[in-house]
Amino acid sequence: MKTSTKILNNAIEEFASLPGIGHKTALKFVLHMLKQKESNVTKFTNSIIELKKSLKECKICHNIADSDICDICADSKRDRNTICIVENIRDIISIESTGQYKGLYHVLGGIISPMDGISPSDLNIESLIVRINENTKEIIFALSATIEGDTTAYYIYKKIKKYGIKISSIAKGISVGNNLDYTDELTLGRSIINRIDFENN
Amino acid sequence: MKTSTKILNNAIEEFASLPGIGHKTALKFVLHMLKQKESNVTKFTNSIIELKKSLKECKICHNIADSDICDICADSKRDRNTICIVENIRDIISIESTGQYKGLYHVLGGIISPMDGISPSDLNIESLIVRINENTKEIIFALSATIEGDTTAYYIYKKIKKYGIKISSIAKGISVGNNLDYTDELTLGRSIINRIDFENN
Repeated sequence: MKTSTKILNNAIEEFASLPGIGHKTALKFVLHMLKQKESNVTKFTNSIIELKKSLKECKICHNIADSDICDICADSKRDRNTICIVENIRDIISIESTGQYKGLYHVLGGIISPMDGISPSDLNIESLIVRINENTKEIIFALSATIEGDTTAYYIYKKIKKYGIKISSIAKGISVGNNLDYTDELTLGRSIINRIDFENN
Repeated sequence: MKTSTKILNNAIEEFASLPGIGHKTALKFVLHMLKQKESNVTKFTNSIIELKKSLKECKICHNIADSDICDICADSKRDRNTICIVENIRDIISIESTGQYKGLYHVLGGIISPMDGISPSDLNIESLIVRINENTKEIIFALSATIEGDTTAYYIYKKIKKYGIKISSIAKGISVGNNLDYTDELTLGRSIINRIDFENN
């Protein structure tokens, strides 16, 4: 898709570089921007510039941070004895929005995937081992329920089991509110194997 | 969805203000931006700033332009005797990408829709009538095949028929390459009514 104006084409190309955005949607964004007040457009672009200028990686857990240490690691109210291992920052946001977890995190920055050329050395595993000390009571794996997720968890498990701390994994089972009809066989099978005591639930 | 960082939240909110973009996709865009090189981010934001600063509306056809008159109206190679009436700039881009039209355009800026509170006075109809002169040979309606599109075309038709110029409308029928099974009844019916001489096709 080409328009008659170079400036328009440039902006379309830039929006089309966003993940999952094609040229038609990019054009929609551009026309939306054109309709906005100048001040709103400045607000939009400034928020992106600010993002790139001010955000860093937390030196402890590799979460996003506006200083050397992220708000979660710096929060003295959180349970500092539990570390939840996640693949990426998005997973932290998802878990935080449940309001069910008050411990710390550790962002691996990916999962082991030979197909995509991601090996253990590409992940933040060394910095996790450095973090483990006498206060660490539990490590929770919150990785994808895929072969890659399981492989990664098992790899890390072998590295840290010698410390004798509790190692757990988030439960896999049918979604809350879901009908059994709509649950795939593997998940259903796993939810039967991992069944929990009714009275304790 | 809330993250622990204000700068991140701001950027997510801004991306989520784009049409059709929710907070999850906005977060995906933000994380994508964070992964980019500083120079790429600057290129992205500059293209948007430039867009707002430099683009105007063509004084003749209301297309987007980087000066008072758009590239299409200024192009002396185009057929200046034909004007194609479209709803918006996006339609110009669609028609231009077919490479089948070499005349001029006129952007209405919408279509008559009492439900959405859009009346004829909200559209660029007066400026169309001003454009019609002794050189104008044909006016083509390229509006949506909806009640609103038909109403708008009929309203303008009544205003301009006195000039005695040829007035046409783009053909409605089954899509090229489409199976009859997948064509809706209304379109199929219309394509039978508007059937064309086989030898001239």
